Amino acid sequence: MGLDKQAAEVVIIGGGFGGLEVAKGLKNVPVQVFLADRRNYHLFQPLLYQVATSVLSGEKIASPIRHVLRGYDNTTVVLAEIIGVDLESKIVYGSRAGRHFDYLVIATGLEQSYFGHDEFRANAPGLKSLDDAYEIRRRILIAFEEAEFEEDEASRQGKLTFVIVGGGPTGVELAGSIIETATKTLPSEFRHIDTSTARVILVDRGTRLLGGMPEEMGKRAMADLESMGVEIWLERGVTSVSEEGVFIGEEFVPAENVFWAAGVQGTALAGSLKVERDHMGRVMVGEDLSLPAHPEVFVIGDATYVVDPQTGNPVPAVAQGAIQMGQFVAQMIKDEVEGKGNARGVFQYKDKGSMATIGRGKALASINERTFSGLFGWLMWGVVHIMFLVGFRSKMVVMMDWVWNYLANERGARTITGDPELKVKEVRGIKMGDKKEKVRK
Amino acid sequence: MGLDKQAAEVVIIGGGFGGLEVAKGLKNVPVQVFLADRRNYHLFQPLLYQVATSVLSGEKIASPIRHVLRGYDNTTVVLAEIIGVDLESKIVYGSRAGRHFDYLVIATGLEQSYFGHDEFRANAPGLKSLDDAYEIRRRILIAFEEAEFEEDEASRQGKLTFVIVGGGPTGVELAGSIIETATKTLPSEFRHIDTSTARVILVDRGTRLLGGMPEEMGKRAMADLESMGVEIWLERGVTSVSEEGVFIGEEFVPAENVFWAAGVQGTALAGSLKVERDHMGRVMVGEDLSLPAHPEVFVIGDATYVVDPQTGNPVPAVAQGAIQMGQFVAQMIKDEVEGKGNARGVFQYKDKGSMATIGRGKALASINERTFSGLFGWLMWGVVHIMFLVGFRSKMVVMMDWVWNYLANERGARTITGDPELKVKEVRGIKMGDKKEKVRK
Repeated sequence: MGLDKQAAEVVIIGGGFGGLEVAKGLKNVPVQVFLADRRNYHLFQPLLYQVATSVLSGEKIASPIRHVLRGYDNTTVVLAEIIGVDLESKIVYGSRAGRHFDYLVIATGLEQSYFGHDEFRANAPGLKSLDDAYEIRRRILIAFEEAEFEEDEASRQGKLTFVIVGGGPTGVELAGSIIETATKTLPSEFRHIDTSTARVILVDRGTRLLGGMPEEMGKRAMADLESMGVEIWLERGVTSVSEEGVFIGEEFVPAENVFWAAGVQGTALAGSLKVERDHMGRVMVGEDLSLPAHPEVFVIGDATYVVDPQTGNPVPAVAQGAIQMGQFVAQMIKDEVEGKGNARGVFQYKDKGSMATIGRGKALASINERTFSGLFGWLMWGVVHIMFLVGFRSKMVVMMDWVWNYLANERGARTITGDPELKVKEVRGIKMGDKKEKVRK
Repeated sequence: MGLDKQAAEVVIIGGGFGGLEVAKGLKNVPVQVFLADRRNYHLFQPLLYQVATSVLSGEKIASPIRHVLRGYDNTTVVLAEIIGVDLESKIVYGSRAGRHFDYLVIATGLEQSYFGHDEFRANAPGLKSLDDAYEIRRRILIAFEEAEFEEDEASRQGKLTFVIVGGGPTGVELAGSIIETATKTLPSEFRHIDTSTARVILVDRGTRLLGGMPEEMGKRAMADLESMGVEIWLERGVTSVSEEGVFIGEEFVPAENVFWAAGVQGTALAGSLKVERDHMGRVMVGEDLSLPAHPEVFVIGDATYVVDPQTGNPVPAVAQGAIQMGQFVAQMIKDEVEGKGNARGVFQYKDKGSMATIGRGKALASINERTFSGLFGWLMWGVVHIMFLVGFRSKMVVMMDWVWNYLANERGARTITGDPELKVKEVRGIKMGDKKEKVRK
């Protein structure tokens, strides 16, 4: 089926798990689908920390959206950032043009939140996009490079101290992966420093790690990380961040590497809708996932706040939630367009469990109230993540990288892009000369 | 053997094929080796065009130098750009410090040359670094994205016209890979344009392609590229480049994508030495590869100009030349340090043939006066390139990507990094609104 000019127009904003699922669910339905994303790729966010810690290259977890949807003839993929929605006129706006919709699906996810302290961002980057991941990778690798030639003891310790703010899955995974880099991957490559002396500190305001997951998982994560050498500081928040270090509660910790995994908030686009939102900025929707006054506008995935009628709990902001919401909305639009259904359904979330990985051969999985850990948990985690990677090729190559990483303890993606200028206070074993005369021609 | 403070100090500038080979050749020799590079990785340049054309991710052809040399205990890897050399005091200078040497090996390669027209660079990027490759990849992918929504016919044709300046191996390989992207990879993914209508024009001042290789290869490359749809314009040079297009001789070709593969020149560091250089800026060295007045300073690889005494021809600027020179210099230093040899040897180049790839399943190889082409040439090209990739893991994953690319005609590395803002004159099928009011909060 080609493009039918008379067909209803469905605009989807966002090519994440939710948005893609809507487009796929509308295959062979007599509608015109436009999927807009500001990136040309779908990003498999659960593995983003592995790009940041040099296990995977960014391309492996990024599938071109055009390619994913190439067989969906009624779908047009648009590389554009949507910056406004006129709900009354039913038009979405990019930076230079607008497009009409009959149905609109907002699937824009969540952004990093600094809880009102956006000034932290410069010295404590978050991990939401590929560019974020490359920046964190750069900082980790440069820290060891600088430490190798830093003669000043205090300064060197600051360079080898990594503070991760936030003990959710991203924080736990980053902390585990960084301590492994320091203790397993790098020691044989440096001549002046013992990379395994690096400190990795994981900070969380709560009383345990993995607050959104079963308590047993939080305990296991803590025990596993501590056995690997990670320091875990609970019930303390970060009150300021500078180039030199970070205040954790009242205590100053000299640390040149601070990474932010502490919070998320609704996107600017969701905020511009002027509809009801929760404290995190997630859009409150009805049980059919549509806006109360606009049944033709749906909000799905992380961007939405909706309570699961079975459990009374909010649907968690995880890939499975987005996928199930996308399938639900596609089915509803299909039924309406084909004249099959008039009454809207009620979205019900199927909890498929939660998972977090701690390190090589160590992961936690909680499924139907049971917690799995260690190597078995890791294999389970691996299988589930591989299953949901978009594209057969990605599945193969990511699995190969993991097997390699597991067997050889090597990290294959250690490219520092951009200009890797080092900042070192005192340079080890080097005779200073009159540098002014030695400038490049 | 650890670091011996009394041992002779060997400084190597550059972690390319030549520099790495020197460090490896000095294993277990009683010297202290310092290898400085401004990047943290060795780059396999012969495959850089595959990063630019979305076949490979950059990480696959970049091996961390520290990792490659981790088993070489007398070698210290330094991430630093060397900006000056004091030949009399025997000190190399980075931006903030200097280091003494007893032996110096300059292996800094060559830079892109615009033949005095550096103003071309902004609109005609070259392909010498990973960052260059990502920039070319971005431009190619954005061109199709923009064309898809460009209503203005002339503007759309300009976006779908790719001009590659320079018919050497890089130009030939880029042209072949871009036409394949347009005709094989992308057609099913776009709704408004026929990507296979893209024009790819390869320009060279000479009378044939692959000027540095046997004539038979140039002819075959031309025939193969033409059969794939590439236009080949010989005996014409590019006289100006703008955002809108390019003057090729007297003729203006509207083309928004111009890539420069036309020339190379010596680096600024080589220029700062104030020693004799050829017209390209390559350092003239003696038959032992050392500077005439400084037997302790060697220049190897692409950075050097030296005539092979057997053939009377200059040693070509290819990976094999650099590798052989690196081995030669390491052996000479070893002999001198160990007191075995006093007379310097004469460098002799072993020509192992030349190769260029045209497209999927098509390559040319010339070995011992024989030329191989087609699928057999391609397999040969593949085997040779895989052999020289540094690191077992890289060999495996690159081979897998090629097999996948060959079988599925897919390009796995199509991530556009940074901000993919589109420039489109007239936007297709879109109702314009009052955008001023619709700005992001």
